Amino acid sequence: MRPIDALVSSLPDGRVVTDPDVIDSYARDRTFVAPGKPLAAVLAGSRDDVVATLRWASEHRVPVVPRGAGTGLAGGATAGDGAVILSLARMDQIRELAPADEIAVAEPGVITADLDRAARQHGLMYAPDPSSYEISTIGGNLATNAGGLRCVKYGVTRDSALGLEVVLADGRILNTGRRTMKGVTGYDLTGLFVGSEGTLGVITAATVRLRPVPAAPATFAAEFGSLRDAGAAVSAIMAAGCQPSLMELLDRATLEAIDDWRNIGLEAGTMAMLIGQSDASDGQAAAARMERLCLDNGATFVAVSSSPQETEELIGLRRMAYQAKERLGACLVEDVCVPRSVLPDMIGAIEAAAARHGVRICTVAHAGDGNLHPVFVFEHGTSEPPPEVWAAADEVFTRALELGGTLTGEHGVGVLKRRWLALETGPVAREVQHGIKAVFDPLNILNPGKAI
Amino acid sequence: MRPIDALVSSLPDGRVVTDPDVIDSYARDRTFVAPGKPLAAVLAGSRDDVVATLRWASEHRVPVVPRGAGTGLAGGATAGDGAVILSLARMDQIRELAPADEIAVAEPGVITADLDRAARQHGLMYAPDPSSYEISTIGGNLATNAGGLRCVKYGVTRDSALGLEVVLADGRILNTGRRTMKGVTGYDLTGLFVGSEGTLGVITAATVRLRPVPAAPATFAAEFGSLRDAGAAVSAIMAAGCQPSLMELLDRATLEAIDDWRNIGLEAGTMAMLIGQSDASDGQAAAARMERLCLDNGATFVAVSSSPQETEELIGLRRMAYQAKERLGACLVEDVCVPRSVLPDMIGAIEAAAARHGVRICTVAHAGDGNLHPVFVFEHGTSEPPPEVWAAADEVFTRALELGGTLTGEHGVGVLKRRWLALETGPVAREVQHGIKAVFDPLNILNPGKAI
Ligand SMILES: Cc1cc2nc3c(=O)[nH]c(=O)nc-3n(C[C@H](O)[C@H](O)[C@H](O)COP(=O)(O)OP(=O)(O)OC[C@H]3O[C@@H](n4cnc5c(N)ncnc54)[C@H](O)[C@@H]3O)c2cc1C
Ligand SMILES: Cc1cc2nc3c(=O)[nH]c(=O)nc-3n(C[C@H](O)[C@H](O)[C@H](O)COP(=O)(O)OP(=O)(O)OC[C@H]3O[C@@H](n4cnc5c(N)ncnc54)[C@H](O)[C@@H]3O)c2cc1C
Repeated sequence: MRPIDALVSSLPDGRVVTDPDVIDSYARDRTFVAPGKPLAAVLAGSRDDVVATLRWASEHRVPVVPRGAGTGLAGGATAGDGAVILSLARMDQIRELAPADEIAVAEPGVITADLDRAARQHGLMYAPDPSSYEISTIGGNLATNAGGLRCVKYGVTRDSALGLEVVLADGRILNTGRRTMKGVTGYDLTGLFVGSEGTLGVITAATVRLRPVPAAPATFAAEFGSLRDAGAAVSAIMAAGCQPSLMELLDRATLEAIDDWRNIGLEAGTMAMLIGQSDASDGQAAAARMERLCLDNGATFVAVSSSPQETEELIGLRRMAYQAKERLGACLVEDVCVPRSVLPDMIGAIEAAAARHGVRICTVAHAGDGNLHPVFVFEHGTSEPPPEVWAAADEVFTRALELGGTLTGEHGVGVLKRRWLALETGPVAREVQHGIKAVFDPLNILNPGKAI
Repeated sequence: MRPIDALVSSLPDGRVVTDPDVIDSYARDRTFVAPGKPLAAVLAGSRDDVVATLRWASEHRVPVVPRGAGTGLAGGATAGDGAVILSLARMDQIRELAPADEIAVAEPGVITADLDRAARQHGLMYAPDPSSYEISTIGGNLATNAGGLRCVKYGVTRDSALGLEVVLADGRILNTGRRTMKGVTGYDLTGLFVGSEGTLGVITAATVRLRPVPAAPATFAAEFGSLRDAGAAVSAIMAAGCQPSLMELLDRATLEAIDDWRNIGLEAGTMAMLIGQSDASDGQAAAARMERLCLDNGATFVAVSSSPQETEELIGLRRMAYQAKERLGACLVEDVCVPRSVLPDMIGAIEAAAARHGVRICTVAHAGDGNLHPVFVFEHGTSEPPPEVWAAADEVFTRALELGGTLTGEHGVGVLKRRWLALETGPVAREVQHGIKAVFDPLNILNPGKAI
């Protein structure tokens, strides 16, 4: 029997896909990273399917690439030659929702926004909201430790993960963490799996923390004649303890891309826009304080939204940013994060790199956290970013690290950032990470070559 | 040369203590767990001292017990025969305080409250505040993932730890994490060390997150005729999104202990007291809402504090609890944590265990997080808790786990909770934890026999 036949016979009917075209559609994420020729895709319907697939893969030494919705921006779910793609998308049940304990137990294929909506029926919310939350999965969010717009106040996915059910490479089932808000029994295995990009085990369920739905947010937008002023306003707002629930910065290049598309009446002198929210019970007062701090720091125009519709429009501007850029060309979406005080320096470095290498870079930032997404635009239809884009990206990464920052705030390393990894991770950390990998996956079948 | 002479000669003068009486004072924590006869205590003054000690220990296969202030409640810093105690207490410098980035870099021996005070000079605070914060160290807090009163709003020590400098068992230096608020490069090694109770490496510095000092808190206290009512009030307050910055529950036995000592005029029918705070900018309104919810849930008396002095008195009641109990006898301080909705059931189970085994148990709870400290009181001068205390404790632990809870919310496993560990940690988790331990400490010299 060929190995693939053994796989088919160990799973319920219809789980294994071998049609090359269908496989190919499962073999890539939202990057340009080219997949190889994977052997098959397993569309898991249950934890048992995951166990059977991993046992088989261990026996036959076949690489397994776990996959949620494939919205990743680091090439983490890209599958190479001979690999089996293990899609968790069909495991999409919310197993439990316990409002009194403010927790839910979700399968990995649950769409992020669906979990949030389910929680809202009980006056609760699931806080982590990557911009992709209508299309990404909880499993993918956990595996990448996704951030989002609200995370400036509510933290990243890690901060909402209490416990996990994980299938290890050899098919054993590991339960980590707990159902309680606190707990310190044993090492923090939950934290170890969150952000491990499918290299340590396959997440088949997660116990997550929910939170009471906050007050309807008060929203403001401010325009600045210089990025430095906008950065100073962000610092002032955070230092004043305003606790924004959203604090996004759009640079001139991004605003131009949006203006080109939707004609938002962009003024000539506007170099940056800051959009902020407060969902505190005295949110209007907090928004007014933030508005004041923007003006104190040189804002040329400030508006507090006066209606839900206006708020929608402002947030819509931010959510439009990615699509607006895609109209300009193919995009390399980057993700550096720096200490907040050097946000203006980092933006300056991005602008310098763009100018030096003649590359169009549009930047959006989760500014309250110092997390910037410089998007490098290059010609549509090019299979790989051209050398000048890599040169500019290299400059941006190097500068981020020099400023005390990190290569990736929320998207992960995947395959895209591997070549810069050694600049951030010293040899000792590298060695212990590979040691940990070997504990969980001694045969190196789980998403080999990714993340570490 | 005897091994101990090699140690002495590898360190600056005065670092190694061999006087048995002095060693003994370093060999225990705040539990009754009896130490053995350690070989020596090293009073490390620098990272180099830690490196030299661990290299020496690896060479000679000597167990090393890291130690902060010895305020632990799990026996984690208790040293056995032939061990070397490695005290970090003298490494007490705040290496850096960067207000604009809201971070500090602290050595492990810094006293928790000192870091908080240093931050407050810049309008910032260090949030984690175990009740022991005037005497515990940052290193000990990290190694146990300490909680505290404020953690219902600001999270546990893990939530304030961004990066660590760790000396591994063989003397290599590992840097984990980063200076930024977010970051996902590589596995979460910071999280792995936090709560690892000195079994994976010795923390020699930590980059921690600071936060703007919130508004002066509004405080209330409520008395209840039954614990179930108090539990229901807690649930209602949390569900309403009041975001208390403190939410402590004291049971009748605790109130009696305090009343015996300080005569607080305890009423006959008062079975529980809830003390809460809000440090929001509209804190008075939040406190009033919480007061209302207490009344709705059967509170017999509620008072909102009207002056800082009254607030001090109320919080003082809570801080007095531990000392009040120590007057009654020797104490086994326990630390179960349960999902919030079963808080009343857990308290009921504690009362039942006390009655069944004829043991005095006084309970205080970080109620907002479902974290209870049942304190088992037994005769002063007894070296070990008597069998009925262990029997009652066994019942409490078993019930906590049945209710979906955990053995330890914040104090750690140490040696005290090892015998119940298997009830919570399945065989797979046990195996991977020992696998991880072997990656970092293959000779098993770091705090052997603790935590896992
Ligand atoms: C328009 C757009 C906006 C975005 N905005 C954000 C944002 O604001 N913040 C942010 O953080 N990201 C953002 N992203 C990136 C992406 O959506 C996130 O990384 C998301 O978490 C990926 O989820 P996914 O289900 O698509 O995972 P995939 O892309 O399928 O997989 C991502 C990684 O997780 C692994 N994985 C997936 N499921 C599992 C599992 N069950 N067990 C183990 N490993 C698994 C994969 O192997 C891979 O390494 C955005 C992407 C797009 C396209
Ligand atoms: C009155 C009182 C109230 C308390 N209240 C609380 C509370 O509210 N919340 C709470 O969580 N705890 C509380 N505790 C328990 C205790 O204070 C905490 O566990 C604290 O974190 C221990 O700090 P320490 O410096 O005393 O550590 P130690 O007791 O010296 O050590 C604790 C553990 O950490 C390890 N360790 C210490 N330093 C290092 C280091 N630098 N590197 C590696 N490992 C290290 C030790 O080996 C040991 O396993 C209380 C204790 C008392 C006596």
